[in-house]
Amino acid sequence: ADTIRIAVTPGDGIGPEVVGEAVRCLEALRTKHGLDLEWTRFPWPSHAWHEEHGEAWPEDALEQLQKFDAILLGALGDPGPMDDPERYLLPDSISLSPLLDMRKGFDQWVCERPARLLPGARQYLADDRAKDIDMLVIRENSEGEYVSQGGRLRKGTPDEIATQMEVFTRKATDRIIRYGFEQARLRADDRVRDGRTRTFRTLDGRTCESQVCLITKRNALRHWGDMYTEAFEEISQEYPDVAIHHELVDAACMKFVQSPWAFDVVVASNLQGDILTDLAAVLSGGMGVAPSCNLNPTDPDMPSMFEPTHGSAPDIAGQGLADPTAMLFTTARMLEWLGRKDPKLAVAGEALFNAVAADLAEHSCQRRGTREIGSAICQRLA
Amino acid sequence: ADTIRIAVTPGDGIGPEVVGEAVRCLEALRTKHGLDLEWTRFPWPSHAWHEEHGEAWPEDALEQLQKFDAILLGALGDPGPMDDPERYLLPDSISLSPLLDMRKGFDQWVCERPARLLPGARQYLADDRAKDIDMLVIRENSEGEYVSQGGRLRKGTPDEIATQMEVFTRKATDRIIRYGFEQARLRADDRVRDGRTRTFRTLDGRTCESQVCLITKRNALRHWGDMYTEAFEEISQEYPDVAIHHELVDAACMKFVQSPWAFDVVVASNLQGDILTDLAAVLSGGMGVAPSCNLNPTDPDMPSMFEPTHGSAPDIAGQGLADPTAMLFTTARMLEWLGRKDPKLAVAGEALFNAVAADLAEHSCQRRGTREIGSAICQRLA
Ligand SMILES: CC(C)[C@H](C(=O)O)[C@@H](O)C(=O)O
Ligand SMILES: CC(C)[C@H](C(=O)O)[C@@H](O)C(=O)O
Repeated sequence: ADTIRIAVTPGDGIGPEVVGEAVRCLEALRTKHGLDLEWTRFPWPSHAWHEEHGEAWPEDALEQLQKFDAILLGALGDPGPMDDPERYLLPDSISLSPLLDMRKGFDQWVCERPARLLPGARQYLADDRAKDIDMLVIRENSEGEYVSQGGRLRKGTPDEIATQMEVFTRKATDRIIRYGFEQARLRADDRVRDGRTRTFRTLDGRTCESQVCLITKRNALRHWGDMYTEAFEEISQEYPDVAIHHELVDAACMKFVQSPWAFDVVVASNLQGDILTDLAAVLSGGMGVAPSCNLNPTDPDMPSMFEPTHGSAPDIAGQGLADPTAMLFTTARMLEWLGRKDPKLAVAGEALFNAVAADLAEHSCQRRGTREIGSAICQRLA
Repeated sequence: ADTIRIAVTPGDGIGPEVVGEAVRCLEALRTKHGLDLEWTRFPWPSHAWHEEHGEAWPEDALEQLQKFDAILLGALGDPGPMDDPERYLLPDSISLSPLLDMRKGFDQWVCERPARLLPGARQYLADDRAKDIDMLVIRENSEGEYVSQGGRLRKGTPDEIATQMEVFTRKATDRIIRYGFEQARLRADDRVRDGRTRTFRTLDGRTCESQVCLITKRNALRHWGDMYTEAFEEISQEYPDVAIHHELVDAACMKFVQSPWAFDVVVASNLQGDILTDLAAVLSGGMGVAPSCNLNPTDPDMPSMFEPTHGSAPDIAGQGLADPTAMLFTTARMLEWLGRKDPKLAVAGEALFNAVAADLAEHSCQRRGTREIGSAICQRLA
């Protein structure tokens, strides 16, 4: 197998700090597992870069990144020095734009966000069954509400009209739904292997070992809601072993709070998935532990991108206070993903996941610094 | 003052049962408070009506309803006899359509959903501060994602494209934001009166007795997000006594779970408001207690419509099991609203609210039937 090359983009705020720990863990894993792994750092702090060049990242950023097998991103979002009103502030819409550019440019059409409430993670729900939360929210990441079509007519006047177009194609709908069913099967297999099977009931009363829940708002946003539903029903025929379920997005939010342990795989549109993944993240311990993966499962020449769900937290940046746990879970997920190119990486990814989970379980909500947590995990890896 | 006339539309499923208790309470209040109040029942079960006439409600339903001062709706949604596959099933998109028709036809441009975690209501969050949840989510109810513009091109083929247009006007944006600020002031006044003040901090460090939080997704849905933000900043100048705050919808969902007690008034678009109100409802006790008000505050000739947030629950319909609490809170809110026409009604509304809240506090999650709960509350009112 060829050397696997990772582009490391620390980004803004706490990004560089948490990425620092990820790199230390990668080093430990490389030694321990004899991985053929390399990485290159691209320090593009968006505020500084924008001040000099008028954009958040270099113009040829995507070209540079495309040569890599994966992108490991810290965090984006850098308003600049808030306490110096003389200097201009960079709005999120610019400093976060590389995120959307990468998703689009590399056709990362799946956004995958696992939500498991691991021992030691903060539990927001009163019901103790929350300990069993173990779902995978799959977000359509290439179109829908995020096509950026629309504008402002008579801007700034009392007669202004702002529009935003939502565009859904059957092609992208089919592929994300099919991806959901495939993940459901894989998850069921994993559970059987680990001896922790779950059962879900189909509409006609049979029991299955996995489930896909489709989210729409088809009672109000009828057109794509109907198309999603039709695609879902058609594709589900090919997966009689997977139970199916349908929720409206508003009801889904409610059920995420009432009985999140009842969900397995959840498939949602771009915006609805954005909302549900944040909700699922908090219910399974919060931003401090939530990984996010932007995947292109179809084109091997396009790198996938891995980032923690949390933001750049500029208020605590540079102080060594940021919790690298989410970043390290994200790194573990990246290695597992790269296991398709070199199986050793999947083994390393699992080792990293286990080390981070063990650290979390042992230290729970204890206050520790970025480096302290990273060191503890590196020690477990060695 | 003229006689106040209410159109009672029990609707489907558990609707007639919970509305039955609302009517009993109205009778008790009429006697006790000497109210000049009348009501007319419109039993339009949507499945049966549709089977005979091809639509969920009579063609002239809106004309009939417009003559009333308010509409008290039970619940909509009636698929029909699920166990008889010979008979056709009515999809939600049809049986719920009168809801959207009324909102549009009567220009009920505000959807107001208070969320308070009252003693006795189910608490889903582990943090005990959840007891202090007391927010008012105000949803833009006339346009945005719900304009029903869009369609399906090449329907049913692999090349299908489904579109949905979102349309936001500055006029509707201004009025909903302004409404939010007015409500924030009223809420602060109420709190001062009741000696339970809260404090919120403005961006420049001053303290205020109320807050409005604007929700958008302006980092991805830029056009209307920017228009909303500009309108919000402009209008907020007129309300220096109200603290302002801005959240992205995904972050808002997370903060609703992490610290819902920190919110006061929340203003959101039609779809984002739909999602956030369901989430706020569950966090403050669930569907069993959540009222919903569709208001036209500007045109006195247009009736406002009051409905519990819960659905028609066909699975338990007709068995006397449905909890009328949400319906009765909704009825209380209707009477308070009608207080603008006759102050006696506001007094009656407060009495009803207090009776329902006292009943809830006393019986908490005890299992009681529809009628038993209704009777207990009627007794308190007498
Ligand atoms: C029934 C549906 C169209 C409606 C909505 O989305 O507005 C409901 O969810 C609500 O919140 O009143
Ligand atoms: C930064 C923003 C545009 C982005 C999104 O909405 O996709 C973020 O919320 C996320 O979930 O990755």
